Amino acid sequence: MTARRLAGGDLAARIRAEVAERATARRDAGRPARLVIVTATDDEASAWYVRSIASAAGKVGLDCDVDDLGTAATAAGLSARLAALSADPAVDGVMLQTPLPPGVALADVSGAIDPAKDVDGANPLSLGRLATGLPAYAPATAAAVVALLDEYDVGLAGARAVVVGRSAVVGKPLAHLLLDRDATVTVCHSRTRDLAAVTSSADVLVAAVGRTHLVTPEHVRAGVVVVDVGTNPTPDGGLAGDVDPAVAEVAAALTPVPGGVGPVTTALLLKNVVD
Amino acid sequence: MTARRLAGGDLAARIRAEVAERATARRDAGRPARLVIVTATDDEASAWYVRSIASAAGKVGLDCDVDDLGTAATAAGLSARLAALSADPAVDGVMLQTPLPPGVALADVSGAIDPAKDVDGANPLSLGRLATGLPAYAPATAAAVVALLDEYDVGLAGARAVVVGRSAVVGKPLAHLLLDRDATVTVCHSRTRDLAAVTSSADVLVAAVGRTHLVTPEHVRAGVVVVDVGTNPTPDGGLAGDVDPAVAEVAAALTPVPGGVGPVTTALLLKNVVD
Repeated sequence: MTARRLAGGDLAARIRAEVAERATARRDAGRPARLVIVTATDDEASAWYVRSIASAAGKVGLDCDVDDLGTAATAAGLSARLAALSADPAVDGVMLQTPLPPGVALADVSGAIDPAKDVDGANPLSLGRLATGLPAYAPATAAAVVALLDEYDVGLAGARAVVVGRSAVVGKPLAHLLLDRDATVTVCHSRTRDLAAVTSSADVLVAAVGRTHLVTPEHVRAGVVVVDVGTNPTPDGGLAGDVDPAVAEVAAALTPVPGGVGPVTTALLLKNVVD
Repeated sequence: MTARRLAGGDLAARIRAEVAERATARRDAGRPARLVIVTATDDEASAWYVRSIASAAGKVGLDCDVDDLGTAATAAGLSARLAALSADPAVDGVMLQTPLPPGVALADVSGAIDPAKDVDGANPLSLGRLATGLPAYAPATAAAVVALLDEYDVGLAGARAVVVGRSAVVGKPLAHLLLDRDATVTVCHSRTRDLAAVTSSADVLVAAVGRTHLVTPEHVRAGVVVVDVGTNPTPDGGLAGDVDPAVAEVAAALTPVPGGVGPVTTALLLKNVVD
């Protein structure tokens, strides 16, 4: 058998169309919606991602500025800029792109982003609000996983969901989103003993570690729905997921990389700007 | 076999002795440490718990005030009081006791507690900071579970930890604390299918749902370490845990109720006040 391919393109296009309509209404009302992406890196993959967001924003009629503080930016400098953008009434969404300069942790500076403008859910307060059931923006990637599962009517209530990866930007917020949808949630990571035994218990398996083809056919049981969050650069300039494509021979469904979670993530990020 | 009894009394006494020493130093320096507990309930079990904290605080030399806003308190009134106490330099710790009046959710008002004084980790920001690895107070109950496991040298790195209960005051913060200790963490709840199958996979099982004797011998495998967070009132005025005492015939170790997590929770709460 071959797994059903859970592509994200159609869902992303629908979300972008909705965003474009609202962005046009905002523009017609003389108050265009604006996203500012703060960067402090010369990482090429990061630059590519930022350009892709800026391009997608432009296509739906959102203003998007990239505010590059350079690789010498300090935590204090980043915090000050994020706070200033948060206070600027002409800015609707503020996003801080990683990686950050050495010695600067995302959580140390993301607290300066107003939760109301924290369109990528980077502020620890946004995560805390999410976990306690208060309105909050989830990191767009985590939200995209759930949106994609919904798109394909994958039932979450009572399901066993296993998340591989415990980052504060994907694994942990995703665990809260899945719990909120009544899944029984397990979070695995590099220290997990017998990873295959844990992942094999999953009805829904999400790989979000950033290691090419970490999840192999030996990690899954027949019938599982697998979501691949990985976007690992390949030597030929492409993208590889965290899931070995051979998993498609065992799983019931699998999101492709590229073309799965990625386009939905970008679309949801833009949606958060007009929300 | 009968499970080892993981009592919390000795650990709690050691923590209280340390707190007493620091509280005395503070008092000698003319600046006594003060905890204020805000209440808005006439629930008798809650009142009993608040009295027990106040009594324990007195014994270690901490000032402890109970600030009762009554059952007619509103969210706005509670928030204002919590903010005022947070701003008061004579107050070191602020705790909001549940239950709250109908229509008032803990997460709606606990954001008014300054994270630096949030000794019971109720502010969503405290949870978010905990989840992102920033310094923060964890809810004392969640911290007590980990402290008790450490007291008895229960290894957590790589262990499979299963938490039954997904509350924002115990289950969720505990999941983050256990993840931070490199456990593989599963969170179960009322919607979990085949709870016994999930709990049977645990090396460490924590019951935190508030349902008397929910966890039975059928839920555990031989050799598991079981932590019982439940404090359910019994008809005769005592306390019953979430774990059926018959589990002791199967498990390797079990915390008693009362006398397990409870005293450690109170001691850690007081420790947070002097921290």
